[in-house]
Amino acid sequence: MVKVNPFYADLLPSYLFRDMGNKAREVKEKNPDAKIISLGIGDVSRHIPNTSIKAMQNALAEMADDSTMRGYPPELGYAFLREAIAKNDYQDLGIDISADEVFVSDGSKCDVANVQELFAADCVVAIPDPVYRDSNIMAGRKIVYLPCRAENNFMPEMPKEKVDVIYLCSPNNPTGAVASKEQLKAFVDYASKNDALIIFDSAYKEFVRDKSVPKSIYEIAGAKKVAIETRSFSKTAGFTGVRCAYMVVPKELSGLNAMWIRRTSTKFNGVSYIVQKGADAVFSDEGKKEVTEVISYYLENAKIIKKGLEEIGFKCFGGDNAPYIWADISKTGLSSWSFFEKLLSRAFVICTPGSGFGKCGEGFMRFSALGKREDALEAIMRIKDLKEKGEI
Amino acid sequence: MVKVNPFYADLLPSYLFRDMGNKAREVKEKNPDAKIISLGIGDVSRHIPNTSIKAMQNALAEMADDSTMRGYPPELGYAFLREAIAKNDYQDLGIDISADEVFVSDGSKCDVANVQELFAADCVVAIPDPVYRDSNIMAGRKIVYLPCRAENNFMPEMPKEKVDVIYLCSPNNPTGAVASKEQLKAFVDYASKNDALIIFDSAYKEFVRDKSVPKSIYEIAGAKKVAIETRSFSKTAGFTGVRCAYMVVPKELSGLNAMWIRRTSTKFNGVSYIVQKGADAVFSDEGKKEVTEVISYYLENAKIIKKGLEEIGFKCFGGDNAPYIWADISKTGLSSWSFFEKLLSRAFVICTPGSGFGKCGEGFMRFSALGKREDALEAIMRIKDLKEKGEI
Repeated sequence: MVKVNPFYADLLPSYLFRDMGNKAREVKEKNPDAKIISLGIGDVSRHIPNTSIKAMQNALAEMADDSTMRGYPPELGYAFLREAIAKNDYQDLGIDISADEVFVSDGSKCDVANVQELFAADCVVAIPDPVYRDSNIMAGRKIVYLPCRAENNFMPEMPKEKVDVIYLCSPNNPTGAVASKEQLKAFVDYASKNDALIIFDSAYKEFVRDKSVPKSIYEIAGAKKVAIETRSFSKTAGFTGVRCAYMVVPKELSGLNAMWIRRTSTKFNGVSYIVQKGADAVFSDEGKKEVTEVISYYLENAKIIKKGLEEIGFKCFGGDNAPYIWADISKTGLSSWSFFEKLLSRAFVICTPGSGFGKCGEGFMRFSALGKREDALEAIMRIKDLKEKGEI
Repeated sequence: MVKVNPFYADLLPSYLFRDMGNKAREVKEKNPDAKIISLGIGDVSRHIPNTSIKAMQNALAEMADDSTMRGYPPELGYAFLREAIAKNDYQDLGIDISADEVFVSDGSKCDVANVQELFAADCVVAIPDPVYRDSNIMAGRKIVYLPCRAENNFMPEMPKEKVDVIYLCSPNNPTGAVASKEQLKAFVDYASKNDALIIFDSAYKEFVRDKSVPKSIYEIAGAKKVAIETRSFSKTAGFTGVRCAYMVVPKELSGLNAMWIRRTSTKFNGVSYIVQKGADAVFSDEGKKEVTEVISYYLENAKIIKKGLEEIGFKCFGGDNAPYIWADISKTGLSSWSFFEKLLSRAFVICTPGSGFGKCGEGFMRFSALGKREDALEAIMRIKDLKEKGEI
């Protein structure tokens, strides 16, 4: 047997959403007639914008003809999409990011995991707790957890020791919290002083409706010298099943921009032409209108879920500029996983145990607002019912 | 500045196909009217099979409706595609591979690069020369090159020292050589005896028409205990611009199958539903017919290019069960790169310098048969012309 990467042994034996899925299947088998509602994994429920569908249909027609078919895409992304992203998501908002700082990928999950290949093995990585951490464990890096607590609006505490890389996520998954400009500035300042790099995950930026909340880390002066930003079409245009995302690596991050080009050219072959055309269409006037409508729909779900959980008696965070509600269930006396199993087996409702994201998540549950309206309403009714029966 | 991965400094400063592209652009700028023909990068020229196009159109229609839209794909691939691959590409040929040993990805380039994350950092990796090696340099591994020479039909020599991982590719890119059963058996025996793992790249298996040539390493007894196999829809169904591939990690490779599931679940979010439906359609009767026709077209190109180059006086290898012709240009006295520049600037024909793939490639050029028939014919005419003028 070949010598294997020893750091895999440091991982917990399984994967949060896989475990949840297995438990859901067990319950379904015992209750074949039950309608299980999932407010668990953050998947979308609304269809792809029609503008994107049309663009992908046109791209397919091109692919069906020798004279117009496209072969290997540029590894870094088609110029049309990189330019549309730079213009619409940055320049039009007064943020100076150019197309050659934008790299198209097949998902933020990949970007966030892959980008760490650029860093030295002995880099110390700071990761908010709760959040996901496995890809850094696999690389054998020393990890420092930055606790996120209610008293700090779930923004991570500043590292107490010198770290090299800091992961931040706002609007936050799983807590739904959003960072203020002041909070982000503190991290940019820390990074500047400590030769550290920030990886800023703003996959949920489209949910920010509050004008005082930054959508991009580059709204903070000096951030282009210390931060990489990842974003996705998954939660804006419902692309979870289509797969398109992008990462910004500014040229001012001397060396990293060139290293990322090299990494991507060597280990990736670009995103499907069809998919990139679909993503590009999101930036048309009609596409933007469709996206705004869908995001409003999800935000209304979030309002319903948050209000419902609060009426049941759970203190809730997030859900205002984010599709996630982070509910404090500690008063029930149940652990996150016990609460998960109770809700699943007694109400046929799935939500995500906070402890699955890290130690600081114990006593919390994540509810996703990305489902259908009727499911959000029905789930809240069932949980209320469970509360009235005294089961939670 | 954050501490970066030091092994990037060991890479050559740029990337083969990027360099070729830059040089081609320079020539184009100086000769705006010239029609440059590329037999360079191994991209396809024939359109996606109509069966796949139809399947993708249907998938798009599903994605346009809330009640049928698909969100996150399973990270490992949809069951329908994993089962179709196991059945059509293995079981129907008498090879015992099951669907849970098949993992769908967005490209073999990614698979071949990513799979090494499963191995310990101190694994010694054996790579045929000529071939591509950068992803292992990035990981800082010790690399042993296995020379491939004409006298051995370009199959790599057996490692002289103990190695842990061996990359093999048949039909080979860049040489177009194919391994015999005996040659593969020798590697399987070596791996069994030395606790080594073989990564077998058979992206071009569809070009094998000679029944005595193995398409899969699993045709060799004992291979399931020592080998991973990567394959792609790029060169079978023209999916270079669509992006779909797969990797087989047998369960008998104790541990690695589970590790790959863990790696994939953590760092990848699956392939677009639309794309997987397109790939699945390749296995329909109509899809198979279309693929066979296209492959025959490319093989006919290969025959034309090979015959032409031989008439010009170059000794040629490959091209029979592979879409690449490996031409020995050493008699011209030119290096591979000089020959490349000569052909580009004087005949406006692009082919790939063998030395770009490794030391043993010096003095050779790779010609791709994946272009259009008229381009293959025209390119050969121009090269003949250059020869007649005494320029090569």
